[in-house]
Amino acid sequence: MNLKELIAAAKGEQPVDCLFTNARIINVFSGEIISGHIAVFGGYFVGIGDYPAQETVDLKNRYVAPGFIDAHVHIESAMTSVSEFARAVVCRGTTTVVADPHEIANVMGTAGIDYMLQASENLPMNVFFTLPSCVPATNMETAGAVLGPDALKPFLDHDRIVGLGEMMNFPGVIFRDDAVIQKIKDTLAHQKPVDGHAPGLTGKDLNAYTAAGITRDHECTTPDEAMKKLRLGMQLMIREGTGAKNLKDLLPVINEKTASRVMWCTDDRHPGDICEQGHIDFIIRTAIQNGIDPITAIQIATVNPARYFGLAQLGAIAPGKRADMVVFSDLQNIAAEQVYSSGRLVAADGKLIETVVSSGSVSCPSAMNVKPDSIDFAIPAKKEKIRVIELVPEQIITRQAVHEAKVENGFVISDTSADILKIAVVERHKGTGNIGKAFVSGFGIKKGAIAGSVAHDSHNIIVVGTCDEDMKTAVERIIEMNGGLTAVCDRKVTAELPLPIAGLMSAAPLETVRNQMDAMINAVRVMGTSVPDPFMILSFLALPVIPELKLTDRGLFDVNQFTHVSLFVD
Amino acid sequence: MNLKELIAAAKGEQPVDCLFTNARIINVFSGEIISGHIAVFGGYFVGIGDYPAQETVDLKNRYVAPGFIDAHVHIESAMTSVSEFARAVVCRGTTTVVADPHEIANVMGTAGIDYMLQASENLPMNVFFTLPSCVPATNMETAGAVLGPDALKPFLDHDRIVGLGEMMNFPGVIFRDDAVIQKIKDTLAHQKPVDGHAPGLTGKDLNAYTAAGITRDHECTTPDEAMKKLRLGMQLMIREGTGAKNLKDLLPVINEKTASRVMWCTDDRHPGDICEQGHIDFIIRTAIQNGIDPITAIQIATVNPARYFGLAQLGAIAPGKRADMVVFSDLQNIAAEQVYSSGRLVAADGKLIETVVSSGSVSCPSAMNVKPDSIDFAIPAKKEKIRVIELVPEQIITRQAVHEAKVENGFVISDTSADILKIAVVERHKGTGNIGKAFVSGFGIKKGAIAGSVAHDSHNIIVVGTCDEDMKTAVERIIEMNGGLTAVCDRKVTAELPLPIAGLMSAAPLETVRNQMDAMINAVRVMGTSVPDPFMILSFLALPVIPELKLTDRGLFDVNQFTHVSLFVD
Repeated sequence: MNLKELIAAAKGEQPVDCLFTNARIINVFSGEIISGHIAVFGGYFVGIGDYPAQETVDLKNRYVAPGFIDAHVHIESAMTSVSEFARAVVCRGTTTVVADPHEIANVMGTAGIDYMLQASENLPMNVFFTLPSCVPATNMETAGAVLGPDALKPFLDHDRIVGLGEMMNFPGVIFRDDAVIQKIKDTLAHQKPVDGHAPGLTGKDLNAYTAAGITRDHECTTPDEAMKKLRLGMQLMIREGTGAKNLKDLLPVINEKTASRVMWCTDDRHPGDICEQGHIDFIIRTAIQNGIDPITAIQIATVNPARYFGLAQLGAIAPGKRADMVVFSDLQNIAAEQVYSSGRLVAADGKLIETVVSSGSVSCPSAMNVKPDSIDFAIPAKKEKIRVIELVPEQIITRQAVHEAKVENGFVISDTSADILKIAVVERHKGTGNIGKAFVSGFGIKKGAIAGSVAHDSHNIIVVGTCDEDMKTAVERIIEMNGGLTAVCDRKVTAELPLPIAGLMSAAPLETVRNQMDAMINAVRVMGTSVPDPFMILSFLALPVIPELKLTDRGLFDVNQFTHVSLFVD
Repeated sequence: MNLKELIAAAKGEQPVDCLFTNARIINVFSGEIISGHIAVFGGYFVGIGDYPAQETVDLKNRYVAPGFIDAHVHIESAMTSVSEFARAVVCRGTTTVVADPHEIANVMGTAGIDYMLQASENLPMNVFFTLPSCVPATNMETAGAVLGPDALKPFLDHDRIVGLGEMMNFPGVIFRDDAVIQKIKDTLAHQKPVDGHAPGLTGKDLNAYTAAGITRDHECTTPDEAMKKLRLGMQLMIREGTGAKNLKDLLPVINEKTASRVMWCTDDRHPGDICEQGHIDFIIRTAIQNGIDPITAIQIATVNPARYFGLAQLGAIAPGKRADMVVFSDLQNIAAEQVYSSGRLVAADGKLIETVVSSGSVSCPSAMNVKPDSIDFAIPAKKEKIRVIELVPEQIITRQAVHEAKVENGFVISDTSADILKIAVVERHKGTGNIGKAFVSGFGIKKGAIAGSVAHDSHNIIVVGTCDEDMKTAVERIIEMNGGLTAVCDRKVTAELPLPIAGLMSAAPLETVRNQMDAMINAVRVMGTSVPDPFMILSFLALPVIPELKLTDRGLFDVNQFTHVSLFVD
């Protein structure tokens, strides 16, 4: 949009494209609700007032808010492509997301970031990115890529790269790891913010972390922690995801002096929650139900993140801003009835208008480098006792236990009677042939195997099962699909969810993914488990930063001792 | 300051330079007052807490606020050098200013901006600049320079150039003048804000002005005007200068939803007001006396402008911020008892600590290009009636009147009995020899002449007097001094104020300038005038954008008709 044309349109020198009359406009700058008409030209708001127009839309006294912004999201967690993610959340009123492509970058490196940038072009949603700061997340496993400062720096000039993403490596910050400090310095030199991720950090460690120029955190779980971080200049992202839900706990932090330093985010939100509850609209509704002023809740969803990320053309209904807006009727129970993106009606009554989403023609190269022939899950028995990963119900931490090994023909095998199942992590990025093998208790699976190529943060293939043959079938099918989730019984695939995009994301609509996921869980239920979301639990068993005992492609990892340990014990 | 060293100090790995104990810290992020200790290392805050320290300063439960920021000031209006300006305001708690070198740029062009950048290095005050957007201010006079977009663009890369200054040329914006639009686009492309200056602009014109990306205004005079601009996304600078005082009128605009979008500024503040009332501290005190919460008043003076201008290291007491702070005892009547800049004590008990101000060795080339021999104020009588500029008491607007000319020997001369005095504007930049000549009523001067090289915005030499000889003596003395103000009686200089820096600023301390100015006004008082500040009034008589009749070096200018007009009328 040419600036001169924009000014001329705002001045009323020619008819605007559309005049939205009789709106009750949420003014996020003044905190008022203003009755008036909204003029849109060339995809931008050009004025509030009476303008000659090509087309008039009578909003009949309904409310209009700026489009909502998710200030921090991993699109990969929705397990669908960027365009299908957009399709799912735009109809909820989310017109902008700031995504952190941490997962795909762990699989594919810069090619993953490039893919996300391409796949997010020409959508009815503005997609910005923070650069994944911690790839790989750890050195205890084989990831798909190592992104040092030299790899990240060229991206900082991109106008849709708006900062450095969550700096989980807080020891790297406070102990001044060269690469970590360089990434931070490069980002700040580009006048872009550095996001934090520092659960529970306090005292001098938190002083050091903020002194580094890290200005945001989305990991607070208590008002006390949130206030400590706010006082040091961090802005607060209040997260309401699928796994981590912090909204109600943190609402007491929001007051007249702090509200301008708060944003909403979803971080990781699974397909079912998006389909059933919603997205940022759900957070806004919940906040209002819990006593937050509706206009404040909308400011937190719009002008605040726009200001934090320097997105001058977003987050408000005012001349010169992109015409992203949400129309709704009930201020106390905000639900998007119409959503406009760059002035176009893109969703109505909860449905995206079909023609506006691009076909998603951007292809993603395969991220599956493993030879099926090399897979061997056999574990020769060396001692009588083995370490066993013990699930803790409804948590992603595990405990460490020691059990008698069940041995058959000189090999340790699963013991379904004791609920001790074989688990393996198959390296899929470098073709190393690495397979970590161990045992896990708590799944309750009595027959068959389940596997997935989603396994934080390196996303190798993880599989658990009652016998090697079913485990192998499950993994082979994932390799054939170029990624996905599988359930296998008696060497037959009983359910599958293809995730061909980096082994993390489907190309199907979010609702399809959600239905496929439901079908998968049902299939696993038949196999005997009562774990509510077995694939989610499975996906965290290879993450060697969450206590207590985990499995990487290089073997069992004792998180407390921070070292690999042997399967067999005396 | 090395980032790694900063982090290590914040982590407490070595003693900090100084620990300020027992402080009541104004936390501008959370809006709280926090009792604690403040650790400073290498000129930066590194932590709140208990730190081993080289030195400890017990603040004995006094309050500590971040150093105050003047968000928009013309240092030239204080008529003293940058370093002397700093000396005067730092002891008031102002540790940062965002200056617009509009006046010196009108005289010297880019050399004036370069001079201000150099002269503001190594001061106990952070001096940032917005680029003067309107040089020359008008085309109806001869200014010292024309600054087009090509001249301004290279400055945008300078880290102390933080935006484009007040865009007074609002017709140029809304009618899309190429150069004006280019300046705006260049600035926005550098991710720096564009400041506005649009008194009274409303409706579609204001929509067009804000659509151009102009995000701040300091010219509001009523709450209604301020709210209209706030609603369109402009941030509000509330000004309390010497001429324009808007603080009390605009306080009603500040509420919990708008406060984060407000800043304080002085714009133009004369030496007397700074010496007697203060600077930003005066605005804070006055705001509090008029009901604004003290912490809000401090936020408006600190974190708000820091955020607007992207000055990430300023405006707060938090790790990683520059250690600029103000110590005071009474929260309801804030007066700086100690001021620290980058961790150094720079002022105590209202006095700057002498050693910290640089000697101001930066020299400014002469800005006086006029040959004394060419000056001739004679006006041959052509008709019987003349247009006369009529002063309006206590305002800078004028009226237009027609009087009989007093003629002697074929020349029109001053008529002191009717209080009609000759006035002239002598072009001083290009050596054109241009002299505009006319008559003015309202000064009440009975003998002698007064003159000055401060005459907005082109700053040619302006002189008014009872006879040509005294006028000539007054102007010649200004030329000899390379600029200044003079009062002359019977061909003798009775008072003078040298302004050798661009003809606008003294090299003397602010208090000296103020005493010299008092002496000048007394000298003019003896000449018969009762105008309170005759040099201030004189300095606006050449400004051809303020109605009704003005005089430039090219002759009389009718502002309402926007054209030059003849002295003589039928």
